[in-house]
Amino acid sequence: MKFKKTRYGRTGRVKTAHGFFKTPSFMTIATRGAVKTLEASEVKKFGADIILSNTYHLYLRPGLEILRKHKGLHNFMKWSGPILTDSGGYQVFSLTKIRKLTEAGAEFKDPLTGKVHILTPEKVIDIQRVIGSDIMMVLDECPPYPATRSYVQKSMELTTRWALRCLEHKKKKRVRNQKLFAIVQGGIYLDLRERHAEELTKYNFDGYAIGGLAVGEPEEKMYASIKAALKFLPKNKPRYLMGVGYPHQIVRAVKFGVDMFDCVLPTRNARHGNLFIWKNFSLKGKFYGTLNIRNEKFACDTCSIDSLCDCPTCKTYSRGYVRHLFKIDEMLGQKLATVHNVRFYQKLMEVLRAKT
Amino acid sequence: MKFKKTRYGRTGRVKTAHGFFKTPSFMTIATRGAVKTLEASEVKKFGADIILSNTYHLYLRPGLEILRKHKGLHNFMKWSGPILTDSGGYQVFSLTKIRKLTEAGAEFKDPLTGKVHILTPEKVIDIQRVIGSDIMMVLDECPPYPATRSYVQKSMELTTRWALRCLEHKKKKRVRNQKLFAIVQGGIYLDLRERHAEELTKYNFDGYAIGGLAVGEPEEKMYASIKAALKFLPKNKPRYLMGVGYPHQIVRAVKFGVDMFDCVLPTRNARHGNLFIWKNFSLKGKFYGTLNIRNEKFACDTCSIDSLCDCPTCKTYSRGYVRHLFKIDEMLGQKLATVHNVRFYQKLMEVLRAKT
Repeated sequence: MKFKKTRYGRTGRVKTAHGFFKTPSFMTIATRGAVKTLEASEVKKFGADIILSNTYHLYLRPGLEILRKHKGLHNFMKWSGPILTDSGGYQVFSLTKIRKLTEAGAEFKDPLTGKVHILTPEKVIDIQRVIGSDIMMVLDECPPYPATRSYVQKSMELTTRWALRCLEHKKKKRVRNQKLFAIVQGGIYLDLRERHAEELTKYNFDGYAIGGLAVGEPEEKMYASIKAALKFLPKNKPRYLMGVGYPHQIVRAVKFGVDMFDCVLPTRNARHGNLFIWKNFSLKGKFYGTLNIRNEKFACDTCSIDSLCDCPTCKTYSRGYVRHLFKIDEMLGQKLATVHNVRFYQKLMEVLRAKT
Repeated sequence: MKFKKTRYGRTGRVKTAHGFFKTPSFMTIATRGAVKTLEASEVKKFGADIILSNTYHLYLRPGLEILRKHKGLHNFMKWSGPILTDSGGYQVFSLTKIRKLTEAGAEFKDPLTGKVHILTPEKVIDIQRVIGSDIMMVLDECPPYPATRSYVQKSMELTTRWALRCLEHKKKKRVRNQKLFAIVQGGIYLDLRERHAEELTKYNFDGYAIGGLAVGEPEEKMYASIKAALKFLPKNKPRYLMGVGYPHQIVRAVKFGVDMFDCVLPTRNARHGNLFIWKNFSLKGKFYGTLNIRNEKFACDTCSIDSLCDCPTCKTYSRGYVRHLFKIDEMLGQKLATVHNVRFYQKLMEVLRAKT
């Protein structure tokens, strides 16, 4: 893995068992083995070369038996490129109600069935081995915001111990085709961020993520925390900012030196009719805007959603038609909107990579 | 329009302002300007060369102003082939609660807004002119089942007078690029069916539909009613059996001499996970079956949905994956199922057309 310094941060190509992906990279979200509304073949056409799925969700549904029978997630969902799987740590804390957190791992109830499960560092590695993801994430605890310094510090230390158990288990199981990334925590306490990054980089992880941000903290505190972590992350390994974010946040983080991103924004917003619109490709100032296609004012609008966009939705349909589909609750509307937002984010990354 | 007699009824090509369609033809349903879950370009790939939309639905939403601004439905939904529009008669009687039926037309309340509208024979022609459908249908009254002979007879006579007013209005407005089909009613009273067919064929309609069937009557009564109407329908004009039906019913009706069909079955059933499966292409006996993909037994099934099907869903995905999508309520599942059922029906028509 080599990264080239550019005016806009750095560009690179990361090799995985399922081919390369280019950085800076935005990973489109396929939480439960599908980019909502889209086939994997479509996602690829819009420029995505790596997708993100979730260990927690896939473990609950479809479950490991079905994934094993299908020889892993790639074959199950027919995506032949790289897949990164989040470990499930974040989801256990944000999506489940009853939980017990011990040194061993995180206990939670499946919100649908009520069945109690426990995720341990070793278990999330084993699950990700069945999934067959190209990049596995360590189990981490993601502290809420706000949280006291002492809570964040203790949580961070637990995350370190869990990360090392993940690394150890991966070695023990002789996993070679799957990378493992550690996750830097530390909340908005800059010295904790620095210390955690420094600590984790002592071990030979394949990449480093910055987690626990974009959870409600002020934007400037987020930027400061990213910078604090980056100071100690190695130059020759990928740096992944988890769950961020808006286009302008991605641009800023790329400038800091971040290589990888994921976020539900493009896909989730699309399903509510919220679309990202290019103003220009300068990436400066207000280079993009948003519109809600459900708005009355688009009813008779025969123009495309975004005149600067090259996605099939913008090349084919009018704002009036897409609005009509949303107004009659026709799911094709959500698909056409998702196509546009997915392409918007991939185009953003293309522009970022081209700014050398 | 020429039809060639075959072992399986007849085959033909019907010319419209937006190109030919081949008969026997199954029109895929795009009630409100979209084949639910699919883009028009996809529907075409699966073999559909004509689609059906609905005057009643399009009149209410998006409404005429939006359709006018988009220069008609073809451009609105980006379907370049033939479109047939049902007149809205059937929908006014089946979907709206409060209505007044007079010689003038049918009054109803929009179930969503409560606004009162009236559809008259002249108005449905005018609406269909704005829609720009290649084949317009006359306004008809579709009697419920069961209904008394005297009710059906009176209703049928009203339908005749409305049909003639439609024809007259079309002439007055000098509509040349749009065909107009009459609708034969008469319930399950065979002499009424015969009489109505005979009466309507005195006038120069471009084609004849058989309406008011598949509304709850026994299947054998439906077949007898179709045959009664067909006896009097001209050989050189298309014959369209409205709202029918299951594959074996279509095969039987084609043998009687029917050319055109429409039905919500393939698309609606798909959205509930009910899929049509080929057993063989003989079209004899039980040549097809059905399965519900939500069924537990498909959870680990790595086979395609239908080994005899050439649709993209069957060529790409496993039963286990499509079931997973349904179980997690991911709309991609409904799309993949729709793709299969739409293709199943088009393949059925291809096999029927090839049996010469």
